[in-house]
Amino acid sequence: MTGETSPLDARRAALPSSYRLFYEHPVVVDHTEGVWIHDVTGTPLLDVYNNVPVVGHSNAHVTERVSAQLRTANTHTRYVYPAVAEYASRLESLFPAALNKTIFTCSGSEAVDLALQVARFMTGKEGMIATSHAYHGTTAATHAVSPSLSRHFVDDRVALVDVPEEALVSGNLSPDAGEEFARRVREAIFTLEARGVGFAGLIMDQVLTSDGVFTDPVGFMAPVREAVRSAGGVFIADEVQSGFGRTGTHMWGFDRHGIVPDLVILGKPMGNGLPIAALVGTEELLNSYGETFRYFNTFGGNPVCIAAADAVLDEIERLDVLANVVATGALLREGLSATLTAHGLAATVRGTGLIAGGDLTAARETPAESKALVVDIVNGLRERGVLISSTGPRGTVLKVRPPLVFQPEHVERVMSALDDTLTELTT
Amino acid sequence: MTGETSPLDARRAALPSSYRLFYEHPVVVDHTEGVWIHDVTGTPLLDVYNNVPVVGHSNAHVTERVSAQLRTANTHTRYVYPAVAEYASRLESLFPAALNKTIFTCSGSEAVDLALQVARFMTGKEGMIATSHAYHGTTAATHAVSPSLSRHFVDDRVALVDVPEEALVSGNLSPDAGEEFARRVREAIFTLEARGVGFAGLIMDQVLTSDGVFTDPVGFMAPVREAVRSAGGVFIADEVQSGFGRTGTHMWGFDRHGIVPDLVILGKPMGNGLPIAALVGTEELLNSYGETFRYFNTFGGNPVCIAAADAVLDEIERLDVLANVVATGALLREGLSATLTAHGLAATVRGTGLIAGGDLTAARETPAESKALVVDIVNGLRERGVLISSTGPRGTVLKVRPPLVFQPEHVERVMSALDDTLTELTT
Repeated sequence: MTGETSPLDARRAALPSSYRLFYEHPVVVDHTEGVWIHDVTGTPLLDVYNNVPVVGHSNAHVTERVSAQLRTANTHTRYVYPAVAEYASRLESLFPAALNKTIFTCSGSEAVDLALQVARFMTGKEGMIATSHAYHGTTAATHAVSPSLSRHFVDDRVALVDVPEEALVSGNLSPDAGEEFARRVREAIFTLEARGVGFAGLIMDQVLTSDGVFTDPVGFMAPVREAVRSAGGVFIADEVQSGFGRTGTHMWGFDRHGIVPDLVILGKPMGNGLPIAALVGTEELLNSYGETFRYFNTFGGNPVCIAAADAVLDEIERLDVLANVVATGALLREGLSATLTAHGLAATVRGTGLIAGGDLTAARETPAESKALVVDIVNGLRERGVLISSTGPRGTVLKVRPPLVFQPEHVERVMSALDDTLTELTT
Repeated sequence: MTGETSPLDARRAALPSSYRLFYEHPVVVDHTEGVWIHDVTGTPLLDVYNNVPVVGHSNAHVTERVSAQLRTANTHTRYVYPAVAEYASRLESLFPAALNKTIFTCSGSEAVDLALQVARFMTGKEGMIATSHAYHGTTAATHAVSPSLSRHFVDDRVALVDVPEEALVSGNLSPDAGEEFARRVREAIFTLEARGVGFAGLIMDQVLTSDGVFTDPVGFMAPVREAVRSAGGVFIADEVQSGFGRTGTHMWGFDRHGIVPDLVILGKPMGNGLPIAALVGTEELLNSYGETFRYFNTFGGNPVCIAAADAVLDEIERLDVLANVVATGALLREGLSATLTAHGLAATVRGTGLIAGGDLTAARETPAESKALVVDIVNGLRERGVLISSTGPRGTVLKVRPPLVFQPEHVERVMSALDDTLTELTT
């Protein structure tokens, strides 16, 4: 970079327009630490958005383990490197006994893409079900189950189901939402069969992040899971958002709902920023697929990324991350609800642990106005050094999802900035 | 790992059967350095196979840069981190001027998958052409252009072309092979149009590794490139094998053939083992695609992997890697040819720089017998501490492809082991 070119101009020159930036005033990062992103002007920005650096930005233990591994060895899985299977075994010990095989990939997208291949091959059917505002990845096959990116990519092999959010009770799904959700899934199965593609399976984010964050009532996934099972389909739990303790009470979102999927997708938080993801599943599915097809992912399960992932599990244990998520998450959601309400906004806060959705759909007369309000809040917080984002089918839900080492004093900082922002916006 | 469980048993318990191992006696890695893989018995194995650790296993400069970056910051591309665009700009300076935009991904598979999406969207057509024993990745869409993995995945949107190898001249393609190759491509375009899917583009490994390694005569890609252009298709050069100086005379395989592709895939060697890959292309294609669709790859272009990639370019310059590839590559190919011939084998050695294919198809009466010979050679070398593999449609070609810091003394070691192996096998 020369002195004359701004970082933004340099970026526009080298990267195409598919790259988007957050915020009216984009963040130019200098360094990161814990829950803080320091920009190049020397301003510390509180990270209340990123779910990748789950044990904190620039985590010292992860750095040390990765650096040591880089000095030692980095190979691929056509050779045996014992630490790879050791990590897989450690990971599998955190799952129900039936989920005892792991395939490592570089990204959640690769893991989802492979899960779709496995579901389709093993059932001999093509049709998949996803939620109507889902996001599951960047590949062509995962784009097809990602209507939140663009309906353009959704093809005839995919049927969409709406989250049954018509009658929210205190902001959450109604007690019978699970049965209604399952009914919609059965309807979608019928649609796929009528199209002649048959039913291969269903994929679902276990906290429904891009659909607007729906976590409660606990157990509402169970009827959906049963509908998939009884139709002979493969239930794929996408834990990219909900996994590795995000919900606090459980390591995995599916576990919180008391269900056992056939396949599980792990992604973003797995290596605290090193590219590692995985497909965890049953021996029946993964060994049967493997007996017909080899699957070799050059970087998947490389010892350096495995070291990062192992260090993340170390830190989750050492820092008692799940307990922190429960305690700090409760403060965060209570604070959000109280602060939004104090400013006279018709708001409901959903979520569990450290995933919170502040639904402002009803705060204005139209969804477009509510979305504009959400955009203003997100940018107002950014100007006050607090980074969050938005989600939901109409962009009317505040997405609040910090690293899992977030502390009560950070919650206070968020609420102070939110209070200031809302004072400016609503007076 | 407990004392009672072998590393192989531990692997079989945790990983599914899709994971395959090299060699009759699999390698259990302890540590790596330069061109050496040291196994857990303390035996050093010479790496004459791996194209990922291009500047040497456990490279100190890469380790230092990655470790420093881990301590500083690791974020994603929704924020500006100036080093990302700086690296993209440095990379693009190594390309023809028309190729001036870069999208970072985690793997070559993700980059190929995206390239196929771009080609299909920009042409409004679906049909792709690949070679009949190509391998381009692990996702569903890339599996469809990877017949070497399984013809099962190749769908109606893909037409395959055979490399015109019927009349090899001194082991290489004939002087008019390029025209014949282009004729086959035009025929495949006709096939795709007749099927109603139209012609979106062609993807081709620029050294045709899995088709058996075909590099000469220089320029034979030019008529193929012209056939694609004149039919309005997108030419995708897969540089996962041929890029970053593998050919020695050029940084990229397409450059050696004097052509300019529309899109270029970079993969394995880019970060010396850290998961980073890229799609490089024209502003016209990538900005137009980007104006319609965002593309966000969580780990793609993260500062840690960018630091690794930047360090690789540093090392390619500092170690004068391309000159070494030319000089050591010539010794390697001469040595292979001389040693195979000295044992009375009807063998030809193709390749350039440090990619060599030792074709033993004619060494036995049937392809099956030739393949068995190749398997025996590969395993015989492994027993003597030299790691290579095989390739080609019939598995009858020795695949010899060391890290680019391979030295003349290492070539001698290979030839000594090959001589011993062939003495055992042919007497």
